Amino acid sequence: MTAVQTGGRRYDYERDGDAIYRQSFATIRAESDLARFPAGLEPVVVRMIHACGMVDLPADVEASPDLADAAGAALLAGAPVLCDAQMVASGITRRFLPAANDVVCTLGEPGVADLAARLGTTRSAAALQLWGERLAGAVVAVGNAPTALFHLLEMIAAGAPRPAAVLGLPVGFVGAAESKRALSDNPFGLPYLVVHGRRGGSALAVAAVNALAAGAR
Amino acid sequence: MTAVQTGGRRYDYERDGDAIYRQSFATIRAESDLARFPAGLEPVVVRMIHACGMVDLPADVEASPDLADAAGAALLAGAPVLCDAQMVASGITRRFLPAANDVVCTLGEPGVADLAARLGTTRSAAALQLWGERLAGAVVAVGNAPTALFHLLEMIAAGAPRPAAVLGLPVGFVGAAESKRALSDNPFGLPYLVVHGRRGGSALAVAAVNALAAGAR
Repeated sequence: MTAVQTGGRRYDYERDGDAIYRQSFATIRAESDLARFPAGLEPVVVRMIHACGMVDLPADVEASPDLADAAGAALLAGAPVLCDAQMVASGITRRFLPAANDVVCTLGEPGVADLAARLGTTRSAAALQLWGERLAGAVVAVGNAPTALFHLLEMIAAGAPRPAAVLGLPVGFVGAAESKRALSDNPFGLPYLVVHGRRGGSALAVAAVNALAAGAR
Repeated sequence: MTAVQTGGRRYDYERDGDAIYRQSFATIRAESDLARFPAGLEPVVVRMIHACGMVDLPADVEASPDLADAAGAALLAGAPVLCDAQMVASGITRRFLPAANDVVCTLGEPGVADLAARLGTTRSAAALQLWGERLAGAVVAVGNAPTALFHLLEMIAAGAPRPAAVLGLPVGFVGAAESKRALSDNPFGLPYLVVHGRRGGSALAVAAVNALAAGAR
């Protein structure tokens, strides 16, 4: 092993993790318009801004009024967090979870490619079929694939178990905006959080889960 | 296991993964200004736009002219990819890597918290000390912590092994812009890629590594 090289202090920057968080959240609250968010949702939006560096994010955020309470109660009750992508599962801070909740991503499981071919859809969408009964009362975090979010809504329409809350944050240019609009317009009464438009991604999904988990403790 | 429920085809959306990629990249190339990027870098920028959904990203992208060649040659030669965050390591598509390259994140290793306290810095920065000799000729991907990027530059100033290329993509409000400016101004001749300003993150870092790896094959 190489001896520790601190490299001296060539650059002047904040090295204290707690101070970095404090300054970051102060800047976010000073520069972004958070007034319309209820108390339970505001820290979730702050964490999402923190994860992407963009203070204009709130303009695209929409959530059902019951989102934070529904997700928080589910997590406290031990609900699993079901993720569409491994990056989302990887980023969730386990010590924030109030009940040592399972964090699940089935995208890498054997058979997903075959199932996708059989269903005529993407692997990201087909992987949701493997969630099975775990979907009942779960917190779902979609941070990558629009097809996964559309497929989830189609599964629920067909009678699949209802999750407690859906964080709909797929990103991109084909179906992302449309799938999030479908979630916010969902006729099933599902509690939801979305960032409308093309923006989204695993970092935003992780930030939302982490903030909801921290708020539920 | 629950029987497969396809949910019918309630929504009209593209379900073919290859078609989604083609349409996405066509939209990106139609809407974003990529003309100033050299041939090796252009697909990297396209992948980064794809990962964040923002066609204005190119305005903030800067890379040294040798970035794509340096990173590609290093990956072909078997260099490891050293990541500051587990989400970055998690997102890298292993089948794109041309030499079954190691993907390393030391943030979770024992002793990092103690090392951070001893060095008076964050765990993200201290974790880089554990890269040791693996830094020589490596591709470094910083997708989270500004302190990690500053610390890397300080280690190199103090004589640590030189990486082949540095993807500097930390995100946020405290030190992110400054650390990326320090990288693009680095006096060490390090090949680099940055997104100036507050934007960055693990998804952008992953997209850059995946595109460079795919281009090197």
